[in-house]
Order: sequence, then structure tokens, then C-alpha cells
Amino acid sequence: MAAEGAIAPGLHRGSVTPRGDEAHEHWMQRCLDRARRGAGSVSPNPLVGAVIVGPDGSLLAEGWHETYGGPHAEANAVRAALDAHGADALRDATLYVNLEPCSHHGKTPPCTDLVLEAGIPRLVVGTIDPFPAVKGRGIRRLREHGVDVELGVLENECARLNEAFFHHVCTGRPLVTLKVAQTVDGRVATASGDSRWISGKSSRTLVHRWRSEVDGVLVGAGTAEADDPRLTVRHVKGRQPMRLVLDRHGRLPADLRLFTDDHVAQTIVVTATDTQLPYAGGFDERGGRVLRVAETETGHLNLRELLETLGQDGPARGNGAIDGPRPVQSLLVEAGPGLATALFQQDLVDRYFCFIAPKVSGRGMPTTGDLGTKEMRDALTFDDVCWEAVGNDMLLRGYRRSVGSNRQSENERADRD
Amino acid sequence: MAAEGAIAPGLHRGSVTPRGDEAHEHWMQRCLDRARRGAGSVSPNPLVGAVIVGPDGSLLAEGWHETYGGPHAEANAVRAALDAHGADALRDATLYVNLEPCSHHGKTPPCTDLVLEAGIPRLVVGTIDPFPAVKGRGIRRLREHGVDVELGVLENECARLNEAFFHHVCTGRPLVTLKVAQTVDGRVATASGDSRWISGKSSRTLVHRWRSEVDGVLVGAGTAEADDPRLTVRHVKGRQPMRLVLDRHGRLPADLRLFTDDHVAQTIVVTATDTQLPYAGGFDERGGRVLRVAETETGHLNLRELLETLGQDGPARGNGAIDGPRPVQSLLVEAGPGLATALFQQDLVDRYFCFIAPKVSGRGMPTTGDLGTKEMRDALTFDDVCWEAVGNDMLLRGYRRSVGSNRQSENERADRD
Repeated sequence: MAAEGAIAPGLHRGSVTPRGDEAHEHWMQRCLDRARRGAGSVSPNPLVGAVIVGPDGSLLAEGWHETYGGPHAEANAVRAALDAHGADALRDATLYVNLEPCSHHGKTPPCTDLVLEAGIPRLVVGTIDPFPAVKGRGIRRLREHGVDVELGVLENECARLNEAFFHHVCTGRPLVTLKVAQTVDGRVATASGDSRWISGKSSRTLVHRWRSEVDGVLVGAGTAEADDPRLTVRHVKGRQPMRLVLDRHGRLPADLRLFTDDHVAQTIVVTATDTQLPYAGGFDERGGRVLRVAETETGHLNLRELLETLGQDGPARGNGAIDGPRPVQSLLVEAGPGLATALFQQDLVDRYFCFIAPKVSGRGMPTTGDLGTKEMRDALTFDDVCWEAVGNDMLLRGYRRSVGSNRQSENERADRD
Repeated sequence: MAAEGAIAPGLHRGSVTPRGDEAHEHWMQRCLDRARRGAGSVSPNPLVGAVIVGPDGSLLAEGWHETYGGPHAEANAVRAALDAHGADALRDATLYVNLEPCSHHGKTPPCTDLVLEAGIPRLVVGTIDPFPAVKGRGIRRLREHGVDVELGVLENECARLNEAFFHHVCTGRPLVTLKVAQTVDGRVATASGDSRWISGKSSRTLVHRWRSEVDGVLVGAGTAEADDPRLTVRHVKGRQPMRLVLDRHGRLPADLRLFTDDHVAQTIVVTATDTQLPYAGGFDERGGRVLRVAETETGHLNLRELLETLGQDGPARGNGAIDGPRPVQSLLVEAGPGLATALFQQDLVDRYFCFIAPKVSGRGMPTTGDLGTKEMRDALTFDDVCWEAVGNDMLLRGYRRSVGSNRQSENERADRD
């Protein structure tokens, strides 16, 4: 508990260390801030920050997970505290961390051992780690050794920070964000097929940011043919994700930019097991890859199987499977009506991001086709809806299911143990 | 010009009277605030507020147009100043008023005469009055008599305050607000026709407020048949507007609430010159009225003629014309796809108010039909777009044309004179 009026280093001058729950949230917020510094470098590991606070409420040290395979946040914070304050200082300190410490030997030793060795008597944890090898075991082990563990501080924020990680661990599939840009009246193109441009420049720049933040971007064959998109990260600086394009019938033209530009090695054509791809030769030579999935009974590509394959840890090359060092934890789908409808129908949309431009097209191509909605109360709804102005456009962000539904019950389970 | 540091009565304690342009805007804002007090009582006259300020920047008096036929704002303010400070105080005062003073004998003597008789040397005016009998004449007359007139302070705000009045004076038609409630994907009903409820309670309450603020509410036959709406003001307190329903073919059921409820005397059926209305007998006995307009070449009701008729000053009873003490200056159209499309096609929409509920219906009834949009750059756009969260819904407000386009050139003309 923070001492009254103590000033913590790192707070802006004159601020007072908060007490009680407020202190917990303050330090957990700092964990989240520090964790974000690992963004883009730790995937497919989660973002983690750790803060160590003395009994007088002063900040002793902090650390975060900086690179994939490198030391965990807790290890960095403990080492920094030892260096600055010596071993004794840890014996009455509190360790804050946004994710449950690991209890297994991975690329680094278990963080629970580190906490016990350092003699830290108290932990405040944001959420449990849903990863099967952890999943409450870390907290249980610490409690068994007499460490006081408090769980669930800023739980939603902590889960949201690593939502793709959480989703992937819980489902085996990437977190699917369906992105659409439409007119107010729900058209993604005019009747003649023209769609450039619906949304404004700010919106298009934001899409480039999202591309840089996901592991893969997916379009359907219709969009690939109509728009010949590049799916590259141009308007912002950032990592180029894998580019996936569906081509069930092998009908895409060989001169698509996805097949011919400088990033062709990051293009994956998704097709059926028996489809001939006329462009496969040159495409393969330039480093492009092909991923084959089964068909559904209705003759469409099995999208669930595709997502499960993408979610697998480094699927082996050969037999059409893709080569990759890590699973795809997050997928941005820049969908036309066909793909959007299929994903909604099969309940494979996790987040819906819809740009609405303040214009009315009238007749034209609808955002989605038939979803089987008989009455208005059966329309698809969203959790955690957020509306945000982006330039002249409005952006709707919504979750098809709350990010924390699995997690919460697991936290409760860990607390019952 | 306000003296430095002078405190004006009516400002909150400790505030300092602003100087220069800032002072002009400050006092004009006060005119607007006072003008609004006449809302609901002065229609079809405009809302006007007047403020008289002494040479030391202190507020001498203020007034507003309180009731239709009663004294104008300038008269109320001048009388209050004479009562409180005597005639001499006006000889070096400044009169602020949001609308050009009238120069003609209407229900009251011309305000320009009043200003000249009082010897007020300086006027600051928001906008000129587009009313044909005024339209710059008031300002010209004052200037000819040596009064210093400054024009155009908070001009847009002043025009917006009386936008229905301005629009009606300039076009002879009511200001038409097209209101729609739709899903994100632009559906106003499911494929089976169900539309209850798309928008949330807050949105529906706001529609009731809008109803109370307009002279008339209009629905098409399709909406009347499908929804049997009441079009009454229930969720807020306020004036019940006229209720207009289109029935080109005389097909509406006789037991509609519009034809049978307590407000039937405020229902007007709009139909063609030769249409038989099976329900006309009982409807007429209960006080309902019928307005007949010509057909277009395509066999639809002539909506432009309808709007022009509604905009006429107290159309005489008989020959199907409606009886009314005043013109309809503002019309809220709660439109289904047919009427919305017709109004957009004929460029009769002035304001578009579109509620977007955060749900996806898929296939269903679109907000608008064919508008002849070939390319996306031909889509209808809006001026002064404003997005506003209403409960869980998003509300788009936009103008098909800027409210001030005519006005501005007229202000310039008055200034050139």
C-alpha cells in the first residue's frame, strides 16, 4: 500500500502516489504502458510490462518484454531492482505485471521461480495467461509458496492489450477483423462496380496502420479482380504482413500486383485441394506460396479450416501448406460482399471495423448479402461498440463477442483454487 | 467598443467584457440566446433577439420577439433601455440584433424608424432579412440616415437559428428534413419487412423532439401501411405538428391511427386530383383534411407542387386545398425507401438526418433505391456534416446545400450598396 503523500519517481512533478485500488490501477496502467514498448518485436509472444514498488509506494524498478526469445518483463524488472536497490529491497516489495507469470521452462526460465528466489512477498496481476502451459499454474504455484497474489486489476485493459494473443490461444485461430468501407446507405460500390474512393484519406491511412499491426491481410477473389489491391503498408511506417488472396477457381489474372510486385514472397494464394492455378509457375518462382484447404459442401473454400491452418504454429512446407516461423495470430480481412457475408454467416468475425463515408450512393453493391435475418431483433449486434470520427468518415468498431468471455471464467477458476 | 475591464451586468461575476470583434461576437451570442426564448411562439416569424450596449461596454438593455404579432425584439430592447436609462443613454449606444431590422409596416411599425427616432448611432447586425419587404432595405435606410451599420457578425449562427424561415422565404417551400433510421448496412427493414426497432430509445425520443419543432411531418403510403405510425409528440413535451400522409391510389386502410386517433384534425391526406378515397367520408367528419396535387408524367404525386402548396401563406379551404393560418416552413419526412428515393432524385431534400444503429441485417429493404449514381464520385454528398452519438446509435446530420449560399451573396449586395 502506498504511503500517504509519497512521491514516486517517474510520476510528473508534484503528483501524489495514489493509494489502495487507485494505486493498483495506477501501477497496472504503467505496466501496460511499458508493455506496449515491445509492440512489433515480441510477437507471437504477448506484450508484458512489470513494475516493482516499495512498501512506501515508491517505484523501485520496471521492465518489459523487449524481444521475442529475450528475457520476460518480470526478469528485466527484478534485475533492474537488484542493480539499483539490492536484494533486501525486494523482500517487502510488490510486483505488478499485466499477465500471469509463466511457470514453465520455455525459451527462458520460469518467472515464478524468479519471484520466489527474489523473495517478493506480493504480486498484483492483470489477467491470467490462457496459454495451456500457464493458465493459472503460475499463480497457484506462487500462492502455494506463500506469495500474496491479487488478480484482476484493469483486467479488461490487460486482455485488450493482448487480444490477438488471447484469442489465438483460446481458439487456435487468428483474431479476425473484418474491415469494410461503405457509404451511409451501406454500399461498397456503385451498381457499375466503382468503389474509388468511398472513404477519405485519413481512413485509408488508418487501414495501413492496421495492416502493419496484424500478421496477415486477406481479400477475396472478387476484390482482387476488381481493385487489384497491393495490400502493402505505404501510408505509415511498419511491418508488411502476409497477403492472402482467395482463388477457389484459379481464375485470377497472372498480372495482379499481389503476384508481381516486390512483396510477392509475402503473397499466399488460398485455393482448393484440386484447383489448377494457371499462374502458379511464375508466381512460385518469385517466392509466392499456395495454401490449399478443403471445400465445403456448397463448393466454397472452407474458411474455418483456413483460419485453423493459419493459427497453427509454423506449419511445415510441402503438400501445399505454408512455411512460416510463427502462427498468424491476427488477420485483417478487407472484404467485399461475398467474403464478408461468408464470414458473418459462419460466425468467424471477431471484430467488425466499418468506415461509413457521409455520402449516399443509392442502388449499388451492398456490404453484406443474405444473413438469414428474419426479424430486426435477429440482426447481428456487437459488444463494446465504439464510434470514432476519422476525417469526414465515421468508424464503427465492434466485437462480435466480448474479448473476455473465456478469460473471466478462467480468472474465477484460478481465484477459487 | 467595450472599455477595458468594464464588467457588464448579466455576465457571470468576475468576467471581463471582451473587446473588438470578440465583443461583437459576445453580444451577438447574447442576441441568439435571447432570440431562442421565442421558440414555439413567434412562428412563422423568425426568432430575433436585440441587445443595447453603452459606450463603456456595459449592457443597457435587451429584448426579444416574444409572440407572433407582438412587438419586435428591437422595440422591446429600446423600450427597456428608455425605462432604465432614459433617452440620452441611447444617443451613444450600440444596438446588436441577429436579423436586419424591418423597414416596412407589418403588424408593428418599422424597426428602422424606431432606431432613427431613438438616435442610436450604431448597429451590429447578424444577417440581412431575406424577406422580400426587407432584404437589405432596412440596412440601406439606416445607413442613408447616417447610422453606422456593421453586418455579418456570427452570420452562420444567425442564419442557422432561423434556417427554416430563411429557406422558406428564399424558396417558397418548407425546409425539408429527411429522417431515416437504418442498420449499419443501410437497411430500414429486414427482407420480411420487419423494422421494429432499428434505432434505440434515445434516437426515437430525439425524433419526437424534432416533430415538436417542425410545422409538418410527412410519411409515404408504404410506411403508413407497414407501420401504422401515430406521428405524435409523445416522448417529449411540445407542439403537435400537422401529419401528412401520401396516398396516391387511395389504398390506405380506413382504420389507420392517423385517420382515427385524437389528432385526426391534424391529419392531411395528400392524393392526386382524381383519386377516390374510400375512407374520405368518416375521415372528413372527424376533421381530417385532403390536399390534392397533380401527378407527374410518371404517375407519381408531384412532390415539388406539394411543397410549394405547403409553403403558401394560409392556403384557402375549398377545392381540396388545406386551410391553415400560416405556411408550413419546416417539414420532417419520416421516409421509407420510396419516398426517400423520390425526394433525393428530385433534389428536394434540404437536410438529411440518418440514424445508424450498430447492427447488421444483411439482405433487406435498402434506405434508398436507384439514384442514377454511375461512379462513386457521383454519390450524393452533404455540407456541414455532423456526426453525433445518440445512445448506442450514430446520427449523421448533413445539408444537401449550405444554408447560407443565397444569403451570403445578399449580404454582400447589401454591403456594396
